[in-house]
Amino acid sequence: MQIVEIWFEFASSYSYPAAARIEFAARDAGVGIRWRPFLLGPIFVEQGWGDSPFNIYPAKGRYMWRDLERLCAGYEIPWKRPSVFPRNGLLAARVALAAEHESWLPGFITGIFRANFAKDLEISDPAVVGRVLEGAGQESAEWLERAGSTQIKNALHQQTQQAVGLGIFGAPSFVVGGPTTEPGAPAPKRGGELFWGNDRLDQALSWANRQD
Amino acid sequence: MQIVEIWFEFASSYSYPAAARIEFAARDAGVGIRWRPFLLGPIFVEQGWGDSPFNIYPAKGRYMWRDLERLCAGYEIPWKRPSVFPRNGLLAARVALAAEHESWLPGFITGIFRANFAKDLEISDPAVVGRVLEGAGQESAEWLERAGSTQIKNALHQQTQQAVGLGIFGAPSFVVGGPTTEPGAPAPKRGGELFWGNDRLDQALSWANRQD
Repeated sequence: MQIVEIWFEFASSYSYPAAARIEFAARDAGVGIRWRPFLLGPIFVEQGWGDSPFNIYPAKGRYMWRDLERLCAGYEIPWKRPSVFPRNGLLAARVALAAEHESWLPGFITGIFRANFAKDLEISDPAVVGRVLEGAGQESAEWLERAGSTQIKNALHQQTQQAVGLGIFGAPSFVVGGPTTEPGAPAPKRGGELFWGNDRLDQALSWANRQD
Repeated sequence: MQIVEIWFEFASSYSYPAAARIEFAARDAGVGIRWRPFLLGPIFVEQGWGDSPFNIYPAKGRYMWRDLERLCAGYEIPWKRPSVFPRNGLLAARVALAAEHESWLPGFITGIFRANFAKDLEISDPAVVGRVLEGAGQESAEWLERAGSTQIKNALHQQTQQAVGLGIFGAPSFVVGGPTTEPGAPAPKRGGELFWGNDRLDQALSWANRQD
């Protein structure tokens, strides 16, 4: 089965509909998913931005909120404009990375996105992250502790550096046939193909199914 | 018939596939088009950019060229990465505005875009613009002279200011039901709805056909 990697950031508004849609879309396409949390902050800082470009450029920001409202209505996914943007997704990203091989990971990820973009909850708050973990049937204290380990902190930093190396500059991004970090995985048939934005989800899935 | 305005800039890479597709897509949707040339330069300068963001942010630029190549292959429209980017579209925009009520306008516009993004020609060169005019069956000297008039220069400046007023920050943009400048035109049923990017063409056309 071909794999599409979804590189996402919990603070990223357009990552929300992509995360909400990808499980169903990938199943329909017969493609597997690998969830790759990373941090946009360090990437934005390298571009000279100390804030989200949607805050730095007001016309772009106003448009984004309206566009997202229209998109979510069309996808029939719940939507409520968050009262704080961007929220700090660091803790949730560490949990997602610590749990990358767990079967409940997709439920946790979509739960955090819904907390931020449909329930207007503060996802940097360990209590909020804990409730999403418990909603996924997990012991929250255990996973919050793992998320705080030096190993996971370093791994998330490395994953963000890997994103930069793949040419990623925004979220969500999709990578097809890229270098994998899974030990023993077969080499990709071609170099990694990068797709940027929720709008490119279907194209990324189609690319994964190309026969050439 | 509902109208979708396409706000475009001849220097804008994603305006090319949108301009190439819109006549057919709008006909299929039963929607009319109004072509609105404007200049991105003054808008970018207000955002603090002295160049295209695709040049200022190299990762974004590299991605754009690859994305556009893939998109044009999918649309089956000719594509050749221009050796100069962005090219100055001022003269061609003035001609397009001078000719806004002419039946050959769409052929001129798509001809200029093909010159820039499929033939790698210098569209700021009056000889290149003249050849596209002649390809559209026009007397090039006559239209180049009209394009240079104070009236047209001012009108293009005003059109760019109108773009800013509509919340436009990039190209192509589509406006549905916006304030029209046509004398005697009926008032729009609702406030203008803005869609940004070639990716939003179909959504803009659907929006024009909404019955509410």
